[in-house]
Amino acid sequence: MVEGKVNHTDLRCFAEKLLTAAGTDTQEAAIVADILVWADLVGRPTQGVWRLKELLPKLRNGLIRSPCSPTFIQKTDGIVQVDGHDGLGRYVGHISMAKAIELAGRCGMGLAAVRNSNHYGAGAYYVHMAAQEGMIGFAFTNAPRRVAAHGGLNPLFGTNPIAFSAPMRNGHSVLIDFSTSAMAGSVTRKAMEAKKPIPENVAIDEHGKPVTDPDQAQRFTLLPFGGAKGYCLSLLVEILAGVITGSEMSFQIPSMFEKKQIATRIGHVFLAIDIATLLPLDEYYERIETLVATVKKSTLEPGVSEILIPGETRWKNHAAHRQEGVLLDSNTVESLTSLANELKLTPPW
Amino acid sequence: MVEGKVNHTDLRCFAEKLLTAAGTDTQEAAIVADILVWADLVGRPTQGVWRLKELLPKLRNGLIRSPCSPTFIQKTDGIVQVDGHDGLGRYVGHISMAKAIELAGRCGMGLAAVRNSNHYGAGAYYVHMAAQEGMIGFAFTNAPRRVAAHGGLNPLFGTNPIAFSAPMRNGHSVLIDFSTSAMAGSVTRKAMEAKKPIPENVAIDEHGKPVTDPDQAQRFTLLPFGGAKGYCLSLLVEILAGVITGSEMSFQIPSMFEKKQIATRIGHVFLAIDIATLLPLDEYYERIETLVATVKKSTLEPGVSEILIPGETRWKNHAAHRQEGVLLDSNTVESLTSLANELKLTPPW
Repeated sequence: MVEGKVNHTDLRCFAEKLLTAAGTDTQEAAIVADILVWADLVGRPTQGVWRLKELLPKLRNGLIRSPCSPTFIQKTDGIVQVDGHDGLGRYVGHISMAKAIELAGRCGMGLAAVRNSNHYGAGAYYVHMAAQEGMIGFAFTNAPRRVAAHGGLNPLFGTNPIAFSAPMRNGHSVLIDFSTSAMAGSVTRKAMEAKKPIPENVAIDEHGKPVTDPDQAQRFTLLPFGGAKGYCLSLLVEILAGVITGSEMSFQIPSMFEKKQIATRIGHVFLAIDIATLLPLDEYYERIETLVATVKKSTLEPGVSEILIPGETRWKNHAAHRQEGVLLDSNTVESLTSLANELKLTPPW
Repeated sequence: MVEGKVNHTDLRCFAEKLLTAAGTDTQEAAIVADILVWADLVGRPTQGVWRLKELLPKLRNGLIRSPCSPTFIQKTDGIVQVDGHDGLGRYVGHISMAKAIELAGRCGMGLAAVRNSNHYGAGAYYVHMAAQEGMIGFAFTNAPRRVAAHGGLNPLFGTNPIAFSAPMRNGHSVLIDFSTSAMAGSVTRKAMEAKKPIPENVAIDEHGKPVTDPDQAQRFTLLPFGGAKGYCLSLLVEILAGVITGSEMSFQIPSMFEKKQIATRIGHVFLAIDIATLLPLDEYYERIETLVATVKKSTLEPGVSEILIPGETRWKNHAAHRQEGVLLDSNTVESLTSLANELKLTPPW
């Protein structure tokens, strides 16, 4: 198969086998495979199984540790500090958000401040974990340096995404997840791979000139989105995920384009707020349904066919891809096939 | 005096007298005067004493109640629900953030979910209250409808600002406070008053055409900042401040341009996180100083003279205006003089 659709359960199983064959602890592999395939299911392949070609070498050369056996230090009833011990970011993210949710179940809100983790992928996954328990979820993470301050030329911040969710009665959620850079790092990498130019106003060279050639990626500095306000949000995320967690700050972490291979030791903050603490869940659902319906009924700008609620496209994709299979592009199929060959595994295609 | 500088203590005292003469409870008047003059001190006159010409009539016609005697319902050790009883938003904001800080002092973090309040002005003020106690502060508020969804034409959201602070050792803070609309509501109102055109890409008419004429303010719909991401943030704020507080949602509140005079019943959420719960304050200060110094040392874009840390300009203004006095423009002087005449008070000019 050059490219094509794969059943999500087969893909999940294959991802899990690749991870365990590369030495990942079995419990961690199961969770990481789930999260990778979830990203593919919701139509975010840049955070999906495509990432295995980056994860497996790091697992084998020890840049990512497994099992990582994270340590939890309970700071107050509602606050826990987690040391991820350079483990798989998706595993560390999962158990940290699970802990924040557990604390919120007891105290009304729970916060997990995580240090020494790695890239956790789709933040939407973790915040939706909170939504599934009737909670508001927040997730913040820093990342290797790629993004300039507003008015600056050199990379200081990671793409520092913000994720947020609010539950819906049907089990879906309003799902917000965006990088505070003008373009997500993973999207620029996909553009590199596909040799597609990136838009102007996204990246600059060392003189501040726009860069659109994806092959110059090593020299890219990304800009924050939305000018000064995006810069403020990058800094906000850095203070939460990089400063108060006691983890590395983004500017201390070389990006993968810098070829310096060190453990990233990035930080995350997860926050869960139990909605039922504030108002009965039924009343909450009525209120958010009213809000969503009102937004959907907006008068439309000429040329716009529909107002989308954040997460709406993800949930549509999720339903469709569960039924029809996950579409893998040729680069992903090729790299996964080659990983399977190395590890003497058979891909599901 | 047509316009000019006024000693901040005199201005504060005058603002307090105007408020009490208009029937405001003395304790509330003292706090509201502080917050108004603080906004002028930090160089945000759109949230300063200029607002008295809007507050006093509302106080007198009962749209804003004073004393409002807010009620607090303790939901968990760390979460309190506040009913502002249509009181002065600044007073309600102040005591609600004070409560969140008190809870954070005991539990590591505290959250106040506020309903039935009014416009609270400069969110920066409340989050800095948290910073002064060594805490991270967040403040979210909704507001009367002014802002379209991304792709929509009709106003649904308020300008729904986000405020965030992180303490600095010198008593200042990294201070982020911005509306999630392309331009703050107060800035457009100032432009109206000054008869200055507003930039394109900020507001649209009912057909989606850019509006730059400030006199067409009644017909303005503001756009979210930064496209889809700004819309996501408007919605995030609405879910926090409008949905889970049980308050009115922005789309249910006519803007002042609609001439419908009803109590706004807007909602706020305040969150305080006690940093010392996670790491010793000294270590925190070293870390944030390293971050700030690194940002300040950025290589500069051509034409940029300095990278500003959010809040830096506010703190420079604060120091300068305390010394030299607060600059009031002619519109503000005129309206305050006229309010003083009505209430038989003498302005300090």
